[in-house]
Amino acid sequence: MSKLKVAIAGVTGAVGQEMLKILEERAFPVRELIPLASERSRGKEVTFHGEKLAVQVLSEFDFKGVDLALFSAGAKTSRTFAPLAASQGCIVIDNSSAFRQDPEVPLVVPEVNPHKISDYKNKNIIANPNCTTIISIVPLKPLHDFGKIKRVVAASYQATSGAGAMAMQELEEQVKSYVEGKPLEVRAFPHQIAFNLIPHIDVFMDNFYTKEEMKMVWETQKIMDDNSIKVTATCVRVPVFRAHSVALTVETEKKITREKAIELFNQAPGVVVEDDPTQNKYPMPWFVAGKDECFVGRIREDISHPSALTFWVVGDQLRKGAALNAIQIAELLIQKNIL
Amino acid sequence: MSKLKVAIAGVTGAVGQEMLKILEERAFPVRELIPLASERSRGKEVTFHGEKLAVQVLSEFDFKGVDLALFSAGAKTSRTFAPLAASQGCIVIDNSSAFRQDPEVPLVVPEVNPHKISDYKNKNIIANPNCTTIISIVPLKPLHDFGKIKRVVAASYQATSGAGAMAMQELEEQVKSYVEGKPLEVRAFPHQIAFNLIPHIDVFMDNFYTKEEMKMVWETQKIMDDNSIKVTATCVRVPVFRAHSVALTVETEKKITREKAIELFNQAPGVVVEDDPTQNKYPMPWFVAGKDECFVGRIREDISHPSALTFWVVGDQLRKGAALNAIQIAELLIQKNIL
Repeated sequence: MSKLKVAIAGVTGAVGQEMLKILEERAFPVRELIPLASERSRGKEVTFHGEKLAVQVLSEFDFKGVDLALFSAGAKTSRTFAPLAASQGCIVIDNSSAFRQDPEVPLVVPEVNPHKISDYKNKNIIANPNCTTIISIVPLKPLHDFGKIKRVVAASYQATSGAGAMAMQELEEQVKSYVEGKPLEVRAFPHQIAFNLIPHIDVFMDNFYTKEEMKMVWETQKIMDDNSIKVTATCVRVPVFRAHSVALTVETEKKITREKAIELFNQAPGVVVEDDPTQNKYPMPWFVAGKDECFVGRIREDISHPSALTFWVVGDQLRKGAALNAIQIAELLIQKNIL
Repeated sequence: MSKLKVAIAGVTGAVGQEMLKILEERAFPVRELIPLASERSRGKEVTFHGEKLAVQVLSEFDFKGVDLALFSAGAKTSRTFAPLAASQGCIVIDNSSAFRQDPEVPLVVPEVNPHKISDYKNKNIIANPNCTTIISIVPLKPLHDFGKIKRVVAASYQATSGAGAMAMQELEEQVKSYVEGKPLEVRAFPHQIAFNLIPHIDVFMDNFYTKEEMKMVWETQKIMDDNSIKVTATCVRVPVFRAHSVALTVETEKKITREKAIELFNQAPGVVVEDDPTQNKYPMPWFVAGKDECFVGRIREDISHPSALTFWVVGDQLRKGAALNAIQIAELLIQKNIL
């Protein structure tokens, strides 16, 4: 296996920084790393394997000779620059929403639909799903395979990391101001997030769902390759730094008992069961932060429906919800000798 | 109307303190107020209408001559002392879970089932429902009247106030320690609550639901007087001080459109509609704290079900979720010339 020339677009952001860390941790075969960002980051440096690298400006960079580009700089940037990079023969794994609904672009969670990865050929682009969708779909997959999911009702508890490094910092600053008795400043979110909840992530759609909520619907159906799965979601920002939690109620064609669900989760890749009421054991975002897997708990048969299961899943938004999933896709490309 | 001799048991707690405040605010006709608490509070004072009153020890107090007793000192205390007070001719409104499932004791939310109040006669006790149930059922009632509710799927985001004054303080202290770089102390909750979520409120039951979640089931059915309503809930503690939020998905026999729901909510007592996506307007706990009504928003037809409505409700746990509802029950007793 030859080592790769890898570019990261959006390297100074929360996800970009996490990508650097994960490439190091997993000893990803990097020959040369090119840190890219917007004009605003000109002059900045990033550290990779102990080496300081100057950030280059994305709009001035030529992707010729780059094997892999990880994009995490927002949908607008991806729409402009990902196709340029791809046209130079570079495979792009894009963390934005820009190409997720493009029928020619595969939307991949390696534990769920690894076979879709070969569709990269169409455009040299693979899309990385929305964070809440990834964290939910990893444990939903074994349930779907066993019992066929008919409907999912989701309520999310999303960390500030999902809105970027500035947003995480804003929670920190608001809490500090609160403790010091100073007025709280609001910049990254539409409202104060410290000691508050904001039931509004991404823009509102015509059907009064937010786009974040609709991503759960569209992306779950695309990744599962099954448009018959019905999904409804309420997505809420909570004053937590970096792991997302989701309360899920899942109606299935075949009934799934708690015991069977635990068995299925235990066998599923990327899922860790943390469920022992006698020991007050269930997943919580403070403790899942920094971990790779999706942690499930509070598993129970739904008492309001003859064939439904209710559970709680927590995953690190920056890792499995974004950077890690993208790098797992890249590892899959290597395994399949595509890279 | 003659003025009343009113006792508050648990007066030093978060709900007890709120009861004092609300009796003042609403000019409740108090002739004499008797603040009661446990042995631990001996020697403490409370202020009522500017007057300092010495806290009396509940176990040493004789309820003879008291017209109304508001109990909010936990289920164990209520089980012992509420029947004693009631046997002396005093009407007890009990905020604990002790009598909520007693078929002889009415469980009352004045906006929902005021007619049940006359059943106070059975035991001289009226039960005040669980906070999350009250906040959810106030807006559920007009939907049920119009479209008959078949099933409710709830995910709660519950403030620390629900666990008492010490718990609210613990969030404050943990956040302070975090800002000062000190270790966080955990006492009131099973785990750290600052920057975290705890999907565990009250004890676990045999069916792997928590008792808090089952209260939503039992109490919704009892208050609606309809055991055919199916309910499932996931109850989660969030780092918010005093208002509870609930994401609700409601399946009805007759379909309810967004427009109809807004019309029904606008007409419903105790409900305020705050729903304007174009202005980023929806209820949030930081802003609902201290208010009396249940605020609803994010109202939309559920895209995953042919006849379901999804919405978000926020209510102050200490007010409508506890102290206010209890005092509204007392006001109803006065209106009906029972007190």
